[in-house]
Amino acid sequence: MTVSFRKMHGLGNDFVVVDVRQSGVGFTEEQVRRIGDRRRGIGFDQFITIEPPRQAGATIFMGIRNPDGSVAGACGNATRCVSALLMAETGSDAVVIETVSGLLPATRTTDGTVTVDMGPARLDWQDLPLAEARDTLHLGIGAGDLHDPVGVSMGNPHAVFFVEDVAAVPLTEVGPVLENHALFPKRCNIEIVEVQARDRLRMRVWERGAGITQACGSGACATLVAAARRGLADRRAEVILDGGSLMIEWRDSDGHVLMSGPTATSFTGIFDGSLLA
Amino acid sequence: MTVSFRKMHGLGNDFVVVDVRQSGVGFTEEQVRRIGDRRRGIGFDQFITIEPPRQAGATIFMGIRNPDGSVAGACGNATRCVSALLMAETGSDAVVIETVSGLLPATRTTDGTVTVDMGPARLDWQDLPLAEARDTLHLGIGAGDLHDPVGVSMGNPHAVFFVEDVAAVPLTEVGPVLENHALFPKRCNIEIVEVQARDRLRMRVWERGAGITQACGSGACATLVAAARRGLADRRAEVILDGGSLMIEWRDSDGHVLMSGPTATSFTGIFDGSLLA
Repeated sequence: MTVSFRKMHGLGNDFVVVDVRQSGVGFTEEQVRRIGDRRRGIGFDQFITIEPPRQAGATIFMGIRNPDGSVAGACGNATRCVSALLMAETGSDAVVIETVSGLLPATRTTDGTVTVDMGPARLDWQDLPLAEARDTLHLGIGAGDLHDPVGVSMGNPHAVFFVEDVAAVPLTEVGPVLENHALFPKRCNIEIVEVQARDRLRMRVWERGAGITQACGSGACATLVAAARRGLADRRAEVILDGGSLMIEWRDSDGHVLMSGPTATSFTGIFDGSLLA
Repeated sequence: MTVSFRKMHGLGNDFVVVDVRQSGVGFTEEQVRRIGDRRRGIGFDQFITIEPPRQAGATIFMGIRNPDGSVAGACGNATRCVSALLMAETGSDAVVIETVSGLLPATRTTDGTVTVDMGPARLDWQDLPLAEARDTLHLGIGAGDLHDPVGVSMGNPHAVFFVEDVAAVPLTEVGPVLENHALFPKRCNIEIVEVQARDRLRMRVWERGAGITQACGSGACATLVAAARRGLADRRAEVILDGGSLMIEWRDSDGHVLMSGPTATSFTGIFDGSLLA
């Protein structure tokens, strides 16, 4: 058995994408871990399977696995990459990606940029969740020079700190402290944000369970929502991550967050199934 | 333009291999660096080109580039991998790989293991080189609990320390100190070795310019030579690296060192030349 795959990335957040709609091939945790080895396998941040849709209205079902083989609920950058693939395949400028977390509509604009509807930002303390009732506009915690973040749930929890200079923050020190703060029973993603203009935010992220990453899509969404809630930015702004820029909009009509940005194929490949035996 | 490649590894030391014998394609330093990006490109420890031979007697010329795009002189694991490829292509059990450092004969045994002639071990102090005349059997330097290594040149310099327990050595601390010791004007690779039997040596390595790596082929060769010189091992032994085992022989007849070990293809792929523009 040979398996064809495509290596894609969005802002350096990288994926092995395998289309199993015809083959129906499945992958064990151990196999996903082996494929994820960047020296002996292929390597990825997430392993993506394109599967037949399970719900009406969906173009495909997207399986998302972490390098340790576990199932992930959502990944905005992967959704953009897979949407771009399906748009090229179908010629359509609109697709709907189904994940275990629900349906994600995606559209393509004339410049080729793909926009994904990341769903509504959730702002209740139970949504993050927090360990106790608090107004998520002022969580009131801190570490080092960081203090009083905004809490936002994009399906996963975020605490967004506003700072004068993102480069000056010792993120590897304060990140793990804040991630594991007692206020966050399920831990938390930590964003630090420098407001450069009402439509331009510079952000760095400490991802829950992963540390500093180049491009956290849900973190960029949480950043825009937090800045708008504090009156520091408009509801549409460029968020500049270490890996590049995303355009984020917090739609007025329904509170959904739209994420737009580039997608790229690095290469296509074939591996022998015997490698996974 | 599309470029086909093969991703291979020997003990986790990984390579992108491109056959340019037909296409004659060349790669700039910038292009090699882009291909070497493990998230936006492909990623490798060394980038290998298979080129037409330049000398009589050579099967092919092997170009070796580092992730920063610079030219490397030799790589034993890559030589084994490319030899295995050429043996599969030609059906021959013996090939000769030409590099900028010279000709490397390789043979295949019945179990599929590929053996590369790494050339002679050089034992004069000028060969490493050292900053002053010393007997390479006792270099007389040390750091922490390490003392008095054997010096061996395999085309590159090695200092081999014998220890009771390789796991107990703080290699990230003593490695850089010893690498940059004043005795080594061109710096030095540092090996720490535990003699488990006369035919079994456990080795860890601090590679010059790279730090701790999983599998340094020339370091394994230097290890066996050093152990044999000190009377601690026979002239043929298994050297157990972090990434797996190599069988090393210091041939009596001519002082050449032979390295045998596994090779593997992780996957084959195609990338679009526009990625490199």
